[in-house]
Amino acid sequence: MNVGRILIGKPLETKDLPHQAISKPIGLAVFASDALSSTAYATEEILIILTLAGGGAAVFGLSLPVAIAISILLVIVTISYRQTIFAYPSGGGAYIVARDNLGEFPAQVAGAALLTDYILTVAVSISSGVAQLLSFPAFRSLQPYRVEIAVAVIIIMTVVNLRGVKESGRIFAVPTYFFLGMMFLTLAIGFIQMAGGALGIVSGVEPIHYDVVEPLALFLILRAFSSGCTALTGIEAISNGITAFKVPRSRNAAITLVWMSSILIVQFLGITFMAHQVVAVPSHTETIISQLARTIHGDGSLFYALTLAGTALILLMAANTSYADFPRLAALQAGDGFLPRQLTYRGGRLVFSWGIVALSLFAIVLVIVFNASTTALIPLYAIGVFLSFTMSQTGMVVRARKISKLKPGETFMGLEGPIEYDPHWKKHMVISGIGAVCTFVVMIVFAITKFSHGAWFIILLVPALVYLFFRIHRHYKEVAKALSWESAPPENTPRPVQTLILVDDVHAETVRLVNFAKSLGHPWKAVHVGISPERVIEVQDKWQKRIGEGELVIIESPFRLLAEPIQDYIDHVQKEQPGIFVHVIMGHLAMDTYWGQALHQNSALIFNLALSRMDHVVVTTVPYQIHLQDAKAATATPVQA
Amino acid sequence: MNVGRILIGKPLETKDLPHQAISKPIGLAVFASDALSSTAYATEEILIILTLAGGGAAVFGLSLPVAIAISILLVIVTISYRQTIFAYPSGGGAYIVARDNLGEFPAQVAGAALLTDYILTVAVSISSGVAQLLSFPAFRSLQPYRVEIAVAVIIIMTVVNLRGVKESGRIFAVPTYFFLGMMFLTLAIGFIQMAGGALGIVSGVEPIHYDVVEPLALFLILRAFSSGCTALTGIEAISNGITAFKVPRSRNAAITLVWMSSILIVQFLGITFMAHQVVAVPSHTETIISQLARTIHGDGSLFYALTLAGTALILLMAANTSYADFPRLAALQAGDGFLPRQLTYRGGRLVFSWGIVALSLFAIVLVIVFNASTTALIPLYAIGVFLSFTMSQTGMVVRARKISKLKPGETFMGLEGPIEYDPHWKKHMVISGIGAVCTFVVMIVFAITKFSHGAWFIILLVPALVYLFFRIHRHYKEVAKALSWESAPPENTPRPVQTLILVDDVHAETVRLVNFAKSLGHPWKAVHVGISPERVIEVQDKWQKRIGEGELVIIESPFRLLAEPIQDYIDHVQKEQPGIFVHVIMGHLAMDTYWGQALHQNSALIFNLALSRMDHVVVTTVPYQIHLQDAKAATATPVQA
Repeated sequence: MNVGRILIGKPLETKDLPHQAISKPIGLAVFASDALSSTAYATEEILIILTLAGGGAAVFGLSLPVAIAISILLVIVTISYRQTIFAYPSGGGAYIVARDNLGEFPAQVAGAALLTDYILTVAVSISSGVAQLLSFPAFRSLQPYRVEIAVAVIIIMTVVNLRGVKESGRIFAVPTYFFLGMMFLTLAIGFIQMAGGALGIVSGVEPIHYDVVEPLALFLILRAFSSGCTALTGIEAISNGITAFKVPRSRNAAITLVWMSSILIVQFLGITFMAHQVVAVPSHTETIISQLARTIHGDGSLFYALTLAGTALILLMAANTSYADFPRLAALQAGDGFLPRQLTYRGGRLVFSWGIVALSLFAIVLVIVFNASTTALIPLYAIGVFLSFTMSQTGMVVRARKISKLKPGETFMGLEGPIEYDPHWKKHMVISGIGAVCTFVVMIVFAITKFSHGAWFIILLVPALVYLFFRIHRHYKEVAKALSWESAPPENTPRPVQTLILVDDVHAETVRLVNFAKSLGHPWKAVHVGISPERVIEVQDKWQKRIGEGELVIIESPFRLLAEPIQDYIDHVQKEQPGIFVHVIMGHLAMDTYWGQALHQNSALIFNLALSRMDHVVVTTVPYQIHLQDAKAATATPVQA
Repeated sequence: MNVGRILIGKPLETKDLPHQAISKPIGLAVFASDALSSTAYATEEILIILTLAGGGAAVFGLSLPVAIAISILLVIVTISYRQTIFAYPSGGGAYIVARDNLGEFPAQVAGAALLTDYILTVAVSISSGVAQLLSFPAFRSLQPYRVEIAVAVIIIMTVVNLRGVKESGRIFAVPTYFFLGMMFLTLAIGFIQMAGGALGIVSGVEPIHYDVVEPLALFLILRAFSSGCTALTGIEAISNGITAFKVPRSRNAAITLVWMSSILIVQFLGITFMAHQVVAVPSHTETIISQLARTIHGDGSLFYALTLAGTALILLMAANTSYADFPRLAALQAGDGFLPRQLTYRGGRLVFSWGIVALSLFAIVLVIVFNASTTALIPLYAIGVFLSFTMSQTGMVVRARKISKLKPGETFMGLEGPIEYDPHWKKHMVISGIGAVCTFVVMIVFAITKFSHGAWFIILLVPALVYLFFRIHRHYKEVAKALSWESAPPENTPRPVQTLILVDDVHAETVRLVNFAKSLGHPWKAVHVGISPERVIEVQDKWQKRIGEGELVIIESPFRLLAEPIQDYIDHVQKEQPGIFVHVIMGHLAMDTYWGQALHQNSALIFNLALSRMDHVVVTTVPYQIHLQDAKAATATPVQA
């Protein structure tokens, strides 16, 4: 308890929920780290796929056209999401848009896809961040421990997020702008060197080498494109967080989105171009970013170290955005009854603790299974994001279609609020339609080109998750129906009650149990489960001497079981007197300490669990406190019913 | 549940407890495997210590005198234990003898020492058995996995013992006699070869080599002696199992003990002598037994393989005897209140399941920590056995002293039965006295020579265990006193009762709770823990509409806690009306399946735990079964109090 308090911090009151309003520059820092950080690995993943075709200047030269194609896709998605921001000013993630326009099933598909990708974001970003850090020569000897380091980082991140970050905006601004500054500085110096003919070439890198070279077919180029599309992950963050911006919220959020996409495109193309100029090659021991920065700034220079540090930091920040997104989406879905309801409870620090813990556990499993290798994780990544893009934009098309049927001045009531007539519905429909088609095609390209490298797992997982969500939903619906006033109108006619007192031994406490049972005013019996014949005789004897009234039923238990014979006996009682209500009363020795409690059989807990599954059975536990610190005092004033 | 049933078998009735009566040859097989198996490693451990002095023929030649000294000690202990067998015909382990003659404290010391050594027996025997198997050339490639193999063997052994072995006698006879046969055959062929000048010399072994050679001082020879004394472990087994023999029990057991010791001495001396003749040297990859058998029978021969297999088998059997001894001793100590009482319960298959599981867990930890190395474990081993020998024989001396004070025909009542006058008390006292002094001296030699190699741990552990045992004992005594009729005479004067109904939401079930509370006839209030203001208004509103009577108290919980505000409220009620008894009634949604249960908050369990620690509080749980298979039927016939 105390360790937890120190790590997590003291509880916060519900009224302390933050109501922040942030400016565009802070908003960029808060919501863009996930998207911007993907430039740290997107170029590298393109080059790794091209290495399969033998690498070399000619093959690696293809990285730039591939990056340009990805940038065009990014522009389409950005324009599409800009519309969503204005349409859903209180937050327009794919789940909400799909739920509002497409219905329950597509919404759950989007939810499953997004939750999967949030987990992958943590695994990929942390793995890449650790790889960046361990690219630094001083830390290379730690490379065998990258899995352990990545897991440790996730655990630290879990604790930080369980604490909850109050001043998150300002904390996020520093590393985001530091990363942007270092990256643009590196690229700028690189361009100046190139213009002056002073740009060096990467040296001292052991490149990845494949013995068998694949032909440079369209399939491979599409695979390189798929891997590079990870640059688009994290775009959705701003549309989720519109309410955090200053008014006019949608406008500010939309401007920030355009800023973010522009920076992302410039940086991504710049890194890809410059990596080709310095002849950076994929390696197991040094990232492309490290090669680039080392060549431009010089080995061992301060700027090299700062660029790497900035890259590692923004990757950690990117993972951290999943810690905001995953628990919030899970809470939304749980609120709709598609995930365990516990995910909607805010913990002592006002954060969705269960969601945070679940995210960390899944991410740790991924990091361990995939050996903290970004390249191994990439084929699983981004399919979910593109599935959610498709869902979201298809939702926007459907929405535009609904608006097309309105007359000027009419409104239509959606789940998120009224939808008004909009004369530009046709333009919106076309833009969203193009976005939906493009992202859908890209998703199919992903599924095909990355299928055998791990994408199959996601293609199986998402439907499995959707099935699970609907199973959970059915459960809650059935329980609600069973409890509802209408389907189960309560009767007021009482049933007869039979009281049973469970007796293990006849001591001072037993008298209290009997008194309590008698005071209830129902017919009562005592019941003893007989495990050894000697003990049965002893208990019968004590009962005769000390209680001397009522019936003591002995249930023989030849297999030395406790709960099952009682269950059988209650069944028997209920069969003899149909409709009867059985009230079981038992004592429970309650100790002051856990270790003291562990020395006792705690059969009350076992009975409570076993009997809670029986119809028409009520269980009463009468605790008997044993305070051993002052055993004499306690024994002098026994508790009395 | 079903997997457990398949592995462990169906439950057995208490009356099926075995009442076997075994012959001397079977008794030898059942009880001697632990003692006889130690010849598989005792010689090797002597040679390993001598290697520290540089090895070589002259140094290794000392192994024979050391083995002779150990054999003499074995004779003394055997004679001493023969007496114990006659004095305690119903079982005379060190714990019983110490408890009967020396008192509680020495008995617990003996118990702690024996439990520790039973755990070590499992770890040492399994480690050595696996080493023997992996000495076989075909299996040497598995040597990197010896820890995993040893752990797997322990787990299999746990399952087998949780099943319980009914026909244990016959099953044990086969490997014991197979081992004895193969070992004597090997030695006999070796002697014949030696007589004919045809005995070979070990070849192809990479000996253990130390860069720094220690001088061959007395200390090193004593250390070799200590390590070899592991040959004496397991001697006590027969004195524990006297009741299993045919009548006359003590006589048959005593004869079997003498057989066992004779075989042990012949075999131990034979192996030590022959190992020296074939110039066997300690190695990390091949055991001495393997070197001996390989040299005598020839590499790759069938007899070589059978000798190794027999040795591995008897070592596994030896570990198995601990699975009988540890749980039985733990149950004895638990019955006396020095260990958790759960250890006295027989599981479904009539075995002491908790003891078996505890033994396995501790042994697995040892195997992992000591990397399944017999040599690393040996310094910890045998101190406990010799401590228990000393306790047992000192007990016999005290017993003889008590008898010396009797007149012919008089008896003295001991814990284990009447002690009769015996004219030979003086002889018995001398024999036991010599045994006690010898084993005590050897134990001190152990503690000194093996101290820095691991014995320090046992020297700290045994007192710590004894302290723990007495802490547990005090706990049980205090609880018994608190519950006893005399110290807590039950009053019959009832206290006033206040009923509190915990209300989370107002649905069909809530009406039943209220009806139940009203039917109890005490003043009642409903209590709702308010986490969000909106929900509080909703609950108050529903209460007004649907219940419309009684008081609904709202307890605000700004930190979103559930149990703590209720505890505070109960405190407050009890302060307002001192001496009052609070009866808390709450509903509990009971699902048919565990996964269904996991989707609900199960706050009843949380409250039950939290409130069981409060004085004067009784908790009643009213389960509300939701049968979702037939949700319609269930909702049509709600349970009614």
